[in-house]
This record gives sequence, C-alpha cells and structure tokens, in this order.
Amino acid sequence: MSKPIHAIIPAGGAGTRLWPLSRRTYPKFLLDLTGQGMTLIQGTVDRLDAVSQSITVVTGTAHVAAVADQLPSVDRDNILAEPLPRDSMAAIGLAAAVIAHRYGRDAVVGSFAADQTISHVPAFHNAVEQAAALAREGWVVTIGIEATGPSTAFGYIQCGDNLGVEGAPDGCKVNGFTEKPDAETAATYLAQGNYRWNAGMFVVRAGVLLEHLAITKPELAAGIETIAAAWDTSEREEVLASIWPGLEKIAIDHAIAEPVAANGGVAVVPANLGWEDVGGFDALHELLCVTDEDSAKGAKVLRATNAATNAHIIAADSDDALIATSTDRAVALLGVPGIVVVDTSDALLVTTPERAQDVKGIVDYLKTTPSESLT
Amino acid sequence: MSKPIHAIIPAGGAGTRLWPLSRRTYPKFLLDLTGQGMTLIQGTVDRLDAVSQSITVVTGTAHVAAVADQLPSVDRDNILAEPLPRDSMAAIGLAAAVIAHRYGRDAVVGSFAADQTISHVPAFHNAVEQAAALAREGWVVTIGIEATGPSTAFGYIQCGDNLGVEGAPDGCKVNGFTEKPDAETAATYLAQGNYRWNAGMFVVRAGVLLEHLAITKPELAAGIETIAAAWDTSEREEVLASIWPGLEKIAIDHAIAEPVAANGGVAVVPANLGWEDVGGFDALHELLCVTDEDSAKGAKVLRATNAATNAHIIAADSDDALIATSTDRAVALLGVPGIVVVDTSDALLVTTPERAQDVKGIVDYLKTTPSESLT
Repeated sequence: MSKPIHAIIPAGGAGTRLWPLSRRTYPKFLLDLTGQGMTLIQGTVDRLDAVSQSITVVTGTAHVAAVADQLPSVDRDNILAEPLPRDSMAAIGLAAAVIAHRYGRDAVVGSFAADQTISHVPAFHNAVEQAAALAREGWVVTIGIEATGPSTAFGYIQCGDNLGVEGAPDGCKVNGFTEKPDAETAATYLAQGNYRWNAGMFVVRAGVLLEHLAITKPELAAGIETIAAAWDTSEREEVLASIWPGLEKIAIDHAIAEPVAANGGVAVVPANLGWEDVGGFDALHELLCVTDEDSAKGAKVLRATNAATNAHIIAADSDDALIATSTDRAVALLGVPGIVVVDTSDALLVTTPERAQDVKGIVDYLKTTPSESLT
Repeated sequence: MSKPIHAIIPAGGAGTRLWPLSRRTYPKFLLDLTGQGMTLIQGTVDRLDAVSQSITVVTGTAHVAAVADQLPSVDRDNILAEPLPRDSMAAIGLAAAVIAHRYGRDAVVGSFAADQTISHVPAFHNAVEQAAALAREGWVVTIGIEATGPSTAFGYIQCGDNLGVEGAPDGCKVNGFTEKPDAETAATYLAQGNYRWNAGMFVVRAGVLLEHLAITKPELAAGIETIAAAWDTSEREEVLASIWPGLEKIAIDHAIAEPVAANGGVAVVPANLGWEDVGGFDALHELLCVTDEDSAKGAKVLRATNAATNAHIIAADSDDALIATSTDRAVALLGVPGIVVVDTSDALLVTTPERAQDVKGIVDYLKTTPSESLT
C-alpha cells in the first residue's frame, strides 16, 4: 500500500517565548531543542517520512537556505519560499495547490507544524493513516491531542460521534473548535473527557481544501490557485511578487476548520502522541530529562548547537534547573534549584518555568530599543 | 607637617570567591567592583595618597604590568615583583626593608591590602595619623575596624587600655588577636564591645618591624634583609632568585602581630571606616546600590569592564538581584529577585548571596578538570 499523504510542513513563527535561543533570524524549528541530535524540523521530517509520498516545506525567504541545509533529503523544489508572512491559510493553501498541480486534486495532504515534538511515533503514524482514510472520503480531518492537563495555551476540539469509516476506527465527527479557554473552562473540558487539544494538524484532499476555501475566502483561494498554476513555470517569481503581498492574513483554523466544522464537515482522530509544542522554557523544561553528566547531576542540560557540545556545565544544589546553551562558555549554577538559564553568544536570560510565558514581554521590550537586533 | 607614612600595598590573592569575575590571571584588585570608575587597587592608592610620602606595591610577577598600567602615578621602581607567592610576611617585610634602605629605618611604614574598600576616607586618614604617632613611639599598630555584625569571616582584635600617646587620642593597647571565631563566640565579642575586626592594616617603623622579625623568624628576617640590600643594585635578580623561593610562607599576623601582642607591644586605633573587604558576591551585593537604569529598576548592576559599559541589562520583577558583567552581551532577568548573575566572556555563574561563600568550591572543582584554565 502506498504512503497515505503528501506532507506539508509550515515552518514559520519566531518562537519568541524561547528567546534568546530562538530568534527571528534563526527560529526554533532550526534548533535542536530535544538534545537528541536533530532539530525540530529534522525531527518533523524524520517522523513524516514513513507516511508521506512527498514532503513540502513552506518557510520565509530568509530561512530557505537553512532549511535546505538541514533537510538534504527534501528536494529543493519542495521548499516553498514565502516573500512575506501571510499566516497559515496562505502558506498551507499554496502548498496544497502546488501539490494538486503536481499530483492531482485527489492527493491527500497533511499539514504538520515544523516546531512540535512527538514521542509516540507509531501512534502518530497510525493516526495519520486513519486521518487519510477519512480524508479520502471527503472529510477535513484533524488529529486531536490527548489533553494531559487543563491548559489555557491551546484551543480545544470537541469530539462527537464515531463516524464508522473503514480504516479509521477512532474517527469521530467534530462538534466544534474553541479558542484558548480560561482556566475554569479548561478544567471543565478536561473533566468532560471528549475535548482534545488542537495542534493545528490537518489532513484533507487537496481539492477538498481548495473547494472549501473557494467558498469561505474566494479571493484568497483564487490568489493561491493563480500562484500555484505559475509555480512550476518561469513566471513563478513575477506572479508571486504581484499576488502574494495582497493575500489575506488568516489562520487555517478560522478560514477552514471552524466554518467547515459548523457545517458538519470536520472529523477528528483522537490520539495519544506524547506531543509537545515546545512553546516556551516551561514546556522545554517538561520535555527534557535530567542529565547524566556528573558535574550537573539533578539539572536538565540542553546543548542547542555543536559549539555547545564541550561547554563545561556545573550545577551544584540546583536540582531541576534548566541550562540551555548555544555557546562553549562554562556555566556554573550554585544553589539555584529550578532556575532557567539560557546562554547564547550575545544574550543571556535567567528566569523560572513559572515566568517562561512572559519572555515574550522581554522580546517586545527589546524591539522598542537599540537592541532590537537581538530579537 | 610631612605625610606620616610610607605606604605598602600587598596586592596578592586570587579573589577566588569572586570567580568568574576574579581570576588568578586577573585578580579582584585589578577590577572595578564598586562601579565608581576605579579598580580596587586604584582606590587604595587614591585613598593613601594624602597620607603617604611614598607608595610601594608588592605583587606577583604576572600582575606587575597590569598594576603599572593601572597606577601611572606609582614609580615603576616602587612595584616589587614576587617571583612566587610567599605569604604576607615576606611581601610586607621585603617592602619594609626596601623602604628602610631608601628612607632609613625610622621611616614609618603602613601596610594596606589592595582589595578593600573604605567609604569614610577622612576617618581613615585620621586613623593613619594616629597610628603613625603610635608607631613613632615604637609600637606595632593596627587599625581596628568597627564590627558591624557577628561576622565569622574575620579575625578579631581585643582592645585594652588607652595608651595616652600624644597625637593618638584613640590609641589603645591590644590585649590579643583571635582567629576567625564561630558564630556564638562572634556574638559574644560583639556584645562585649571592645572587640574590633582585624583588616590586616599595620603601621610600624620599618626598623621596629624588622627587629621583631629578627627575633620571631630570624631566617626569614635575614633573607629579607639580604634581598633588600641588593634591591637597588645590579644584583637584585640574582639574589632574589636564590633566596626568595626558600623564604618561609607565613602571615604577618602569625609572624609579628600575635607574638608581639603577647609581649604587650601592639597598639590599636579603633576606627569606623565604612570598610568592606569585598570577599564574595554577598559582600559585593551589600556594597552596591540599586541601579537607576530604567530597564533594570530594583536590581544592582556592576559593569566591571569598559566592554560592559553598553551591555543592555534588563531586570523585570527581579528586585535586589545582582548582575555583574564584564561583557557587552545583553542580560535579561525575569522573575528572579535576589539572584546573583555573573557574566564573563568564557564563564557564567548563577547563584545567591547566601551561597556566595561556596563559590570557592566551584573553583576548587574546576582546578581538577580540563577547564582549569578558567580559574
């Protein structure tokens, strides 16, 4: 049996809450945040390979070279450069339309962000197979991440009745999507048991996606189709330059998932994937295991670059501290359990997991100063 | 009236507890730890200038160039280089013997460490004047620092009866010196009121010092006198190389102060100097005032080098944190009140004032590793 999907990897976002490791010029998907010798985007490709006939990456012009460098197995023609960020609908829609031109409108596409981690890979492959089975039947399909706590950082998917589609035993109808809830609402969702986290994973026939978009956002759909038609021709740059900047900036959730769900057209495959979006140093702290390095016993150590491989890291009486470094400098922690220290060549951050989400505020502040280049 | 003393400044010690700011190769007396635009040794010279006919520095061979560079007002002939560290008696004794050769044995010498700070300079000058008056009468004189708490980090001086010497209204006899006490004993000293901290400040006629040494440590005295006799001749290097390495390593407290006090020959001038030895980041934290930099309000900032002048330092919800930096890197603290962050080009330390004294343990550990060069 052939591989079920054509993978789309939108690689955008600065990963602001992971500053100073993650920068606009070198965002988090280019970093090895798991300490396993693979960057997030390399891990994403590695995971998708077994279920994908092709892999298409959509990223900003500034990151094309780094992406190509990190992904030697991905054909250079399959790395689509966005001249400007136009949010997820334009990025995923363009990739889907290019795939439709190359492989036909019945091709099933699956979109998965470049900066997430999944520890249960066989469960992920199984979920993709089921999602593709539903997609072939015409559904817009999402994968519903098991909610492991009452998180207020994610949107939720309300799962309805099982759809009984062959090849998708877990596939259910989606009753609706919700925005990020407050803590009380999140606790209610968790207690009810039929709510899942929305990780922005979508599987759908390329033609179905574009038809839905033609109804919900006809101008955006037309623009994307025009660019895609020119993509594999000598007119690509000219058409892209004239149309792309005028495309509406909208997330795929708002353009497709929510309105189609309201009409009963979205399905979900619930799955327990060991999923992390690594959105901040709190998530990174959760993700990493305590080091077995003698000099840093009890702490968590992330060497995010090759340069950091030989950095001497010492943690004394600093259990559960997180040291993330991209430099070869020595880092010594003494009597600071649970602290978060992030060391880079031009900026240093010291905070705690509890304040990790507020790192964005530091970056926002820096953008107003002469140190803007540090963001 | 002529200036009362010939100043001796022993500039030794690595300042291990101020690692990574202070290094064997660049010890704390070469650093501006007060943030007032002067290094500790520059401050020491500046303070002594008004009361000193001459200033002699004794330092390790490795530091002579940096000392000369920082002290353009000190004659190069007055910077004595120790080929090897031989503790304070040899260093101060050699300087005293050289001064005796240059100015006569009746010259009053005063020895003051290169790495202390004093905020009440007029009180210091007054104490030196009184100490010199006592020294001219033949006393070995120390200056007794007001004990502002039951510190276990310093030795104590027990003050006895006022000596009634003209020009030294505060001068008392020393009943004895004590080693660093335990906390309970220190509290007793503080309660009794007649105990003072020993900051290693000694004022004495050069000839008196050398005579006492000839009795307590005759070989050491003879060695020092031989080297001093050759100092201003072409034989300096040869004599130094042959004798210095064999000199006994002993502190002036043990070689002179304690035995002479036991025979009733030591006086003390009690004085309230606003004195700090800046022994660790806890003392540095005490010493520094909260910054008036907008982006770091509530924190204490030390820019220890010129390179650090323009470092962007941000402290949010981090009151009373100490950021000491010798680099131009940005440092951002978020939600870490009271923390100590020390940033240098090749090593970073994160700790708390409570653990500041244990920094020595990190340095001791590093010395056993391939990162020994970082100490």
